[in-house]
Amino acid sequence: MATYVLIHGSWHDGSAWQPVMTRLEKLGHTAHAPTLAGHGADVDKSVNHNDCVQSVVDFIVDQDLTEVVLVGHSFGGSIIARVAEEIPDRLRRLVFWNAFVPEPGKSLIDQIPPHYKEMFHALAAESDGDARTIMLPFPLWRDVFIQDATLEEAQAAYEQLSPEPFQPFVDTLDLQRFYELTIPKSFLNCTEDTALPPGEWGWHPRMSSRLGLHRLIQMPGSHEAIFTDPETLADNIVLAGRD
Amino acid sequence: MATYVLIHGSWHDGSAWQPVMTRLEKLGHTAHAPTLAGHGADVDKSVNHNDCVQSVVDFIVDQDLTEVVLVGHSFGGSIIARVAEEIPDRLRRLVFWNAFVPEPGKSLIDQIPPHYKEMFHALAAESDGDARTIMLPFPLWRDVFIQDATLEEAQAAYEQLSPEPFQPFVDTLDLQRFYELTIPKSFLNCTEDTALPPGEWGWHPRMSSRLGLHRLIQMPGSHEAIFTDPETLADNIVLAGRD
Amino acid sequence: MATYVLIHGSWHDGSAWQPVMTRLEKLGHTAHAPTLAGHGADVDKSVNHNDCVQSVVDFIVDQDLTEVVLVGHSFGGSIIARVAEEIPDRLRRLVFWNAFVPEPGKSLIDQIPPHYKEMFHALAAESDGDARTIMLPFPLWRDVFIQDATLEEAQAAYEQLSPEPFQPFVDTLDLQRFYELTIPKSFLNCTEDTALPPGEWGWHPRMSSRLGLHRLIQMPGSHEAIFTDPETLADNIVLAGRD
Repeated sequence: MATYVLIHGSWHDGSAWQPVMTRLEKLGHTAHAPTLAGHGADVDKSVNHNDCVQSVVDFIVDQDLTEVVLVGHSFGGSIIARVAEEIPDRLRRLVFWNAFVPEPGKSLIDQIPPHYKEMFHALAAESDGDARTIMLPFPLWRDVFIQDATLEEAQAAYEQLSPEPFQPFVDTLDLQRFYELTIPKSFLNCTEDTALPPGEWGWHPRMSSRLGLHRLIQMPGSHEAIFTDPETLADNIVLAGRD
Repeated sequence: MATYVLIHGSWHDGSAWQPVMTRLEKLGHTAHAPTLAGHGADVDKSVNHNDCVQSVVDFIVDQDLTEVVLVGHSFGGSIIARVAEEIPDRLRRLVFWNAFVPEPGKSLIDQIPPHYKEMFHALAAESDGDARTIMLPFPLWRDVFIQDATLEEAQAAYEQLSPEPFQPFVDTLDLQRFYELTIPKSFLNCTEDTALPPGEWGWHPRMSSRLGLHRLIQMPGSHEAIFTDPETLADNIVLAGRD
Repeated sequence: MATYVLIHGSWHDGSAWQPVMTRLEKLGHTAHAPTLAGHGADVDKSVNHNDCVQSVVDFIVDQDLTEVVLVGHSFGGSIIARVAEEIPDRLRRLVFWNAFVPEPGKSLIDQIPPHYKEMFHALAAESDGDARTIMLPFPLWRDVFIQDATLEEAQAAYEQLSPEPFQPFVDTLDLQRFYELTIPKSFLNCTEDTALPPGEWGWHPRMSSRLGLHRLIQMPGSHEAIFTDPETLADNIVLAGRD
């Protein structure tokens, strides 16, 4: 039985993993889903990318977790790549679920299509808190992120989102060490995930191919299978995360 | 419950949608499947692209349909894009099912691979009616369009096809207005559809990406799921067409 | 009912097809799975590509098989393309299952990514038999070839592999005649097959598109569905191989 640490993506917090954790635990595994620094409702959004990374490192070290299967979703991919640089000896495998595998020396926002980049900069400029944040517009959420939900489910899930701190998107990530690590890696691809548009800018094989030798697992579903099909997601995380 | 208007592709007529309509109606929806001008057996094939468009506009206006989910298959994609320019206020969503999303200022035949373009021009030159038409050669139909049928099913479906008027293939389509419309759009992709060859000339993401913000739905099946799996097709049209 | 001749890929021998054959025979078909020259345990590995081809030609001619559906997996694709040049009149259809469709005048090793090419040359240089051979490293097998097995299944299947003669990989294949044959062709694609990395170097549509007019069939599974899902594989070979 394995120990999973599940890292959410932008606009989410750790609570979104609950149905996945329930399934993993039912299968006999241990699962944790910490919330990244600056994420969730009613918290200080003045964080940078490294603060997010450090919050996961601290969680794993404080709980003294070892042989961890570290799973990152979407933005969370950039987090687990950096966590792997910090505490490689505690990790058994990295699982990137439709996740960013950032190129060394680039920021996250360099990895998305120009029209999204522009939109995110505009949303950040309009944000009115102490720190710049961005909120995902609902029409984009409904049709591009969670198209496999009913409108009502899409609305309910949207209510659970919170504004995303912008600084982690624009921080340059070194990641030289990540690309030298020999920790086994998997990429889990939901075949209808259009949060990055299929093709030139898509998740797969653009992000997956950067992992070098890795295991590919695919399942049907949108970017938000965490809401729309958490049991199948959990089962495929197991296929991606096992030895 | 929604109102669907289903627009067939080349060589087909509205009757091919009957099993899909039966399923949609069983689910409580209303469904219509008009035959495009110049399509079907024993009709005058002297039509251009605009005649096809106008026949759908007339159908929707005559029946006074509103809040229409307008679905176009294959060639039908070029029709619904133009219909949307004419009567946008009557449409709730456009669904392109493995359908052409033509570039502005191009004709349909500009969107297909050179070897098909050549073959279609040759077939049109050989046609012997008053108007130039093309018929799909059976070997292409069987292996490339309807490979998920038995040979007998493929033959039976072929019997229902009729020669396609050629003029609509070569008419230049302006479509400037289409690309400015904000009607919600979906692309339904059958993952084994090889009517356009996968890759550089494929349906997805080549055609789908032209829609800009849109919802992607995928299902297994060939270009002719209308014959080989109409119930699953209907169910996915609902997923593509709902709010 | 059809007659199938099933040609294995590198590191395999004919015995790997046994569960597929059992299923095909249960469906009423006839199935044969000869082992290529120089393949399997305890045989002379001093063979070239043509020896492998000739061993299949001899098998089909000796058994006087006609109307054969000839199936090639992986490396076996390069074999069936050459067999088709030698005895076209005995073949009813060619089925390439995630298989090489080599370009004329190239060798097999020209069709794989540079990092694999380099690795295979290094493994061949290190081999210590009379003939140069290569063995697939287990980590590559486990994560890239057979990721849909458990670790134990992956290990058990690995035990059935044997070193692959290297000469057939580097022999130049003419194949001019193959590209002029009108034998019907199918490509069966396992959607999680990463033995060739998805994208620029992938099986599909890179290899499939070289077939020209062909039938595409897809199923879920890794490169080694022969071990992990032989019944579904057999059923899809039937869909690919029927008229």
